[in-house]
Amino acid sequence: MSLLREASSRLWSIRSSEQVALAKRAAQITAELQQGVTRPYKNVIDCSWGDPHREGLNPLTFVRQVVAACLYPSLLTSEVLPVDVQLRAKGLLGECGGGSVGSYTSTAGIPKIVQSVSEFISQRDGAVPSSPENIFITLGSQRSLMMVLKIFVKNEGTIQTGVLSPVPSYPYFNMALSMQGGVMVPYHLCEEQGWKLKVDELSRALHAARGHCNPMALYVINPGNPTGQVQSRKSIEDVIRFAAEEKLFLLADEVYQDSVHDPKCEFVSYKKVLFEMGPPFSSSVELASFNSISKGYFGECGLRGGYVEFVNLDPTVMGHVYTLFSMDNCAAVLGQIILDIMAHPPQPGDPSYPTFSEEVRAIQDTLASNVQRVQTVLGSLPGISCQPIKGGIFAFPQLHIPPCAIQQAKEAGMEPDVFYASRLLEETGLCVGAGSEHGQSEGTHHIRLCIATPTENMEEVLNRLSTFHLSFRSHFS
Amino acid sequence: MSLLREASSRLWSIRSSEQVALAKRAAQITAELQQGVTRPYKNVIDCSWGDPHREGLNPLTFVRQVVAACLYPSLLTSEVLPVDVQLRAKGLLGECGGGSVGSYTSTAGIPKIVQSVSEFISQRDGAVPSSPENIFITLGSQRSLMMVLKIFVKNEGTIQTGVLSPVPSYPYFNMALSMQGGVMVPYHLCEEQGWKLKVDELSRALHAARGHCNPMALYVINPGNPTGQVQSRKSIEDVIRFAAEEKLFLLADEVYQDSVHDPKCEFVSYKKVLFEMGPPFSSSVELASFNSISKGYFGECGLRGGYVEFVNLDPTVMGHVYTLFSMDNCAAVLGQIILDIMAHPPQPGDPSYPTFSEEVRAIQDTLASNVQRVQTVLGSLPGISCQPIKGGIFAFPQLHIPPCAIQQAKEAGMEPDVFYASRLLEETGLCVGAGSEHGQSEGTHHIRLCIATPTENMEEVLNRLSTFHLSFRSHFS
Repeated sequence: MSLLREASSRLWSIRSSEQVALAKRAAQITAELQQGVTRPYKNVIDCSWGDPHREGLNPLTFVRQVVAACLYPSLLTSEVLPVDVQLRAKGLLGECGGGSVGSYTSTAGIPKIVQSVSEFISQRDGAVPSSPENIFITLGSQRSLMMVLKIFVKNEGTIQTGVLSPVPSYPYFNMALSMQGGVMVPYHLCEEQGWKLKVDELSRALHAARGHCNPMALYVINPGNPTGQVQSRKSIEDVIRFAAEEKLFLLADEVYQDSVHDPKCEFVSYKKVLFEMGPPFSSSVELASFNSISKGYFGECGLRGGYVEFVNLDPTVMGHVYTLFSMDNCAAVLGQIILDIMAHPPQPGDPSYPTFSEEVRAIQDTLASNVQRVQTVLGSLPGISCQPIKGGIFAFPQLHIPPCAIQQAKEAGMEPDVFYASRLLEETGLCVGAGSEHGQSEGTHHIRLCIATPTENMEEVLNRLSTFHLSFRSHFS
Repeated sequence: MSLLREASSRLWSIRSSEQVALAKRAAQITAELQQGVTRPYKNVIDCSWGDPHREGLNPLTFVRQVVAACLYPSLLTSEVLPVDVQLRAKGLLGECGGGSVGSYTSTAGIPKIVQSVSEFISQRDGAVPSSPENIFITLGSQRSLMMVLKIFVKNEGTIQTGVLSPVPSYPYFNMALSMQGGVMVPYHLCEEQGWKLKVDELSRALHAARGHCNPMALYVINPGNPTGQVQSRKSIEDVIRFAAEEKLFLLADEVYQDSVHDPKCEFVSYKKVLFEMGPPFSSSVELASFNSISKGYFGECGLRGGYVEFVNLDPTVMGHVYTLFSMDNCAAVLGQIILDIMAHPPQPGDPSYPTFSEEVRAIQDTLASNVQRVQTVLGSLPGISCQPIKGGIFAFPQLHIPPCAIQQAKEAGMEPDVFYASRLLEETGLCVGAGSEHGQSEGTHHIRLCIATPTENMEEVLNRLSTFHLSFRSHFS
């Protein structure tokens, strides 16, 4: 018997092992295909991740040129790179210890880049002030979320810290909360109303939780993951009012802020709304807002970078935050550099501007066109309904699974949506996420598809899904 | 009153605020010098970090070329890079999702690189078997240590989990342990015997702790930080025997494994010794061994990368480990790529071999010569004694501080070594680490200097330190 077996047993149950099993099976089928095994499809298409480059979108040239030059400064003396790339790289290297991206940085990040991020936020929010002291660059927004949870999730005492978290949600957040010893207080987004966040549901969830745990915070994802809704200013105001009344810390996951596809919607940050509401809200509601280089048109998941901005935190708490973040030493320097580019992209007149703006527009156009195609194709299929995808990089359609398929899933010990996703993978080589991984209202079933992929790949995904879906329904009807 | 103030107050006391104050003061003086303030020195030299590039050592050309090519594959078609760089980069890109280093990887790392690391370990250990399933690539060894602590440090119940940890030590480890809710059980390295790790001291520490906490693990650092000792095979055997008898999990921090300066010493890994001891040890003692790209001749602190190898963990626990590491999504891809180079550096006959081997030898020679100079110069000063620096990248000399200086430090509310370091900084612009940050035996005082720096910088450090030290002694005698 291992020394550790008992001590760590609490952890294993947190993860949905069914999604892990799907991913493993996808890898296995890929290996078999490579070994020459014959199947009715040539390759596996995995759209279960939110990983734009894996799905075939290209990195931005300016980003990669600047980072490559910072890594290997000999490139600065060659003709290979445009002059604005060289200037940017030289400037950034001057901010690195010993002029090398291989040096540690300050805990919160390279001061110049933290300043850039602060200017970016202020500009985004129509001149709402932003202070570099409140910003920490991190190893990605997932890491930021975990750090912030450590601030207020208590492990002592008999009553657990609760955090209101949406259903459906970003599953890592709930895992992180659970590992930290906290408990998720689920509130349901209203699917029939385009996954709207409703304050009466927040209130129901909060009051149901009180007594069982100590709810201290409210986690919101805007634009939604996996649900694709974009909150209106009015909706954000209502949520802020609720957080103020109930003394909840607001955790605003805004990593899809540059991915809004519906021209009638715009992204408005929680911070902007909070400030524009004025006192007492603007001076009292505690907020952490998260952003990342992994999403939007950057898509640099593998380079790990993000930031968190805190609002209205007590200076003593900010001291604790500093201590907490210092435990990671510092964020990866190249992720920091990409944040600098996100904050200050090439401007008209710069040599790299034409290519940069064209690449960004191409990605935005691809996403917008994928959204249209997904909605058209899914809308035409019987037994599937999909709320409008206004933002983000996912579709999260509801499946109306025939009762005898549900029965067969039960007999196989599987969630019905995992049963569906598993057969979809076996029969067509298409790997999607199962709704049960994200949470869904009792009796409903969903799948999650990443839409950040080239048009032709999206078409192939929709073809495989349509063909399978019709055959599945006919088989089980 | 902030919502969070009370909840997070436990955290703030963990960090030595005195070291933070020294670093802040160094930054302030640097800024003042840049603004034209006149002082008896032109610049601040900060040798309080263990950050080779910041100290002026250069990154390895092959490493930077491969990583730059992976980031910006257009370089692969140019004449700028040697052919072995191009081949390596192409091979590594083929292992990345969508051929981009911007994609997430598997939780444990890119499988091909995990395999490389496993081969490296096996080769290092004279063919002791290593299995890729037991290796996780991480965001650096500090992150690995934190993750591993999560496995067995319990936050529930009334008795805290204890971990035996050396004095002096790597302070982040003790901070991480404390944040996790565990408690450090200090064992003292024997300074008079070259910072030897003695089993009777481990035994004393363990028995003193039992009843107060539940000691579950033993943390060792070999080669030592900040103490520079290199453990003999015999010493490691004794420690393993002790861990087996007392059922302690062994945490072997071996990040300085390629930095052994004394030709009479060699680095032997805990895993190698464990396997060569045979059963019952080789099949029962639980071990985690840590390595990093931040140390040795790579020195790539800012790119964040390391790995941990587990030995003899129960398969159920390994499942929990997988879940824990999946919380970080994956390690930074470029850090992973550098681990691949660490595992399989250029070989004789490769175009990059001459430069690579020359750069590595130059760094090793610089460190060896710095060790000689530090020992010669400090050995000649009254009131300083320094144990032999056999490995690692630090000197940790003991200061014999005059009683009236100790008295004055007390009156200023400072530790005597912080008082010394603070005056050293003010008077000469040299910033060193204070021994109290690392822990030291009652009544002794030390400073920590990084020796991973170019020769001329080391000379300047020693000049400033010698001049100050003599004047300090004469002032307070």
